[in-house]
Amino acid sequence: MYVIAVYDVGQKRVAKMLKLCRRYLNWIQNSVFEGEITEARLEEFKFRASQIMDEDDDSLIIFKTRQEKWLDKEIVGHERQNLGNFL
Amino acid sequence: MYVIAVYDVGQKRVAKMLKLCRRYLNWIQNSVFEGEITEARLEEFKFRASQIMDEDDDSLIIFKTRQEKWLDKEIVGHERQNLGNFL
Repeated sequence: MYVIAVYDVGQKRVAKMLKLCRRYLNWIQNSVFEGEITEARLEEFKFRASQIMDEDDDSLIIFKTRQEKWLDKEIVGHERQNLGNFL
Repeated sequence: MYVIAVYDVGQKRVAKMLKLCRRYLNWIQNSVFEGEITEARLEEFKFRASQIMDEDDDSLIIFKTRQEKWLDKEIVGHERQNLGNFL
């Protein structure tokens, strides 16, 4: 399936969360990631994220769609996607 | 159509951007908004966003889907949605 993940975590946990997300998905902006992922990998990702997150303060939102074609993406302003490879 | 909008703008422009997004969509987390919107309203929203944004530094990503049912939303951790009404 195709997912978009957006995290909002405390400053101390940003680096770990960023690293984790990049292992499972593609970075597109700040704390936003997207990509094709299996149900099993997604479960693993959520479990690992929950281990990093402070459950009272942090959140991770995942939007899922069965087919990427059902979702159109449009970027207004500066396209940062390519930078992702260098981080 | 149903959209998810995520902005990444410089600190000086956050307040304006937040206010604009809240006029068109529902806040769900930090810089993430979602909601049902017409094509015409979306065009208006993007135009107004581009007037606030610094095109070299800022970005706004919009994911669009024709039907909300094609998109599942899942939240790991702290649910902040309700707080949105008080901001």
